[in-house]
Amino acid sequence: MRVLILGAAGMIGRKLAERLSREGEQLILADAATGDDLARPGTAERLVTARPDVIFHLAAVVSGEAEADFDKGYGVNLDATRSLFEAIRAAEYRPRVVFSSSIAVFGPPLPDSIGDDLAPTPATSYGTQKAMAELLLSDYSRRGFLDGVGIRLPTICVRPGSPNLAASGFFSSIIREPLNGEEAVLPVPESTRHWFASPRAAVGFLVHAAALDSSALGTRRCLTMPGVSATVADQIAALRVVGGDEAVARIRREPDETVMRIVSGWPGNFDARRALELGFRAESSFDEIVGVYVEDELA
Amino acid sequence: MRVLILGAAGMIGRKLAERLSREGEQLILADAATGDDLARPGTAERLVTARPDVIFHLAAVVSGEAEADFDKGYGVNLDATRSLFEAIRAAEYRPRVVFSSSIAVFGPPLPDSIGDDLAPTPATSYGTQKAMAELLLSDYSRRGFLDGVGIRLPTICVRPGSPNLAASGFFSSIIREPLNGEEAVLPVPESTRHWFASPRAAVGFLVHAAALDSSALGTRRCLTMPGVSATVADQIAALRVVGGDEAVARIRREPDETVMRIVSGWPGNFDARRALELGFRAESSFDEIVGVYVEDELA
Repeated sequence: MRVLILGAAGMIGRKLAERLSREGEQLILADAATGDDLARPGTAERLVTARPDVIFHLAAVVSGEAEADFDKGYGVNLDATRSLFEAIRAAEYRPRVVFSSSIAVFGPPLPDSIGDDLAPTPATSYGTQKAMAELLLSDYSRRGFLDGVGIRLPTICVRPGSPNLAASGFFSSIIREPLNGEEAVLPVPESTRHWFASPRAAVGFLVHAAALDSSALGTRRCLTMPGVSATVADQIAALRVVGGDEAVARIRREPDETVMRIVSGWPGNFDARRALELGFRAESSFDEIVGVYVEDELA
Repeated sequence: MRVLILGAAGMIGRKLAERLSREGEQLILADAATGDDLARPGTAERLVTARPDVIFHLAAVVSGEAEADFDKGYGVNLDATRSLFEAIRAAEYRPRVVFSSSIAVFGPPLPDSIGDDLAPTPATSYGTQKAMAELLLSDYSRRGFLDGVGIRLPTICVRPGSPNLAASGFFSSIIREPLNGEEAVLPVPESTRHWFASPRAAVGFLVHAAALDSSALGTRRCLTMPGVSATVADQIAALRVVGGDEAVARIRREPDETVMRIVSGWPGNFDARRALELGFRAESSFDEIVGVYVEDELA
């Protein structure tokens, strides 16, 4: 099977490429960082020429950058996505397109648990762009121009590597840094609840979405992925299991009003029934998520 | 107050212009039919130069045409709408933008009554384009580039004038033609339920949306408008009140599988609580809707 990964240089893209490569798939890897910028005219057409059977579209400008640079966010997250869909339509074949969306399509006011039928009311331009791309994916699929499956990823945790500047970065830092003997800053209260899955689970979602019988989806091509609803207190308890009190002591509490305000608008819990019924699987506890980090990154 | 109406040559646009003109507003009327094609580069910028306080954006390619001509539908309903928003952003002022959306953003599977929080799952490209434009409107409003209010119009009935080729045309024809002594074709069963408001109510929604305190909307800038949930049997009963058995006898039953299939995917009932709380008002029965037609068009 020929597989194109757009956004292949990102953390999830690299892990996906590794897994598919081990499984013997024929890979075409593309990323703006390595010269394949979807936002540049002609790039999508060129990449689609090879008529890949499956296209993973993971390329995106992240939330913070899309908020800071309005035009770049729309240019990449919306327009480049549409260019890709148009290139596929022009090539007149019908590949499976797996699109990585995000729980950022949801914003306040939010119920305690978000079901599959709740209207997206994004609180960021990033969430808006993802919600618009989801609608496009469903319409291009309905029209028969491609065979799309959109998956709304939870916050991926524990992200390996060095800390980044995303507002959500602390969710990974407070596990990763202490386990590596370093200090981490916690800017929100321990009662903060959020929705998580491991990088390994995210790759699992993508692979499952690539093989899914899309006739079960009807016109609703986009699915909220399962995950673990956990508070920061749950996270810290899971850290203690693996790293002991010594690791937990490396978390420094430094309340940050700005981060608290941003995070308070994020969803904390979902009822991801459709995805579960379709066979998508995540971890079942935050302990398990930390276990995956230890196995995949520290072993 | 300076008011720009885009789509001013349409049925609702003309009625809105008449009402606002009677009320002494200073109007700028624009329509593709009279040379102001928003899809043409520069048009939006030119129209915004006058810095209207309120912009009514009613210009659209209708459902059937957007389905038949994919590129034109996206070009007008999405891209031209975005050009308008961009022109306003570039002009660096913050007008009220009243955007006419549609209940076509909803598609099957549908609950018996559609609440304000149901996720749009459009069954047409037109509905997709309207849902995408709604998201844009909310994001541009959140960012402070404009002050948007989106209103999802019910099916407008009774449309004056000659029959058109829209799949929904019969909802108006079966009232209008018999009252004018002509025959009308009914292609669906009498049990078919749909969501209606009169042209007068639609104009009322637009005017109310222009004056609304938008701080009450939060990030959810788009509202389902109130309406009357009525079956074709209810419509016929209302026709009988005004036109008697003679008028009802002019309805010819001619079941049409294609129309039935299309109409079966349309929503029939809403719980438009947010709009009602914000003071939007429609008719309360189909009898009243027919009464408005008689008063406004036949008197």
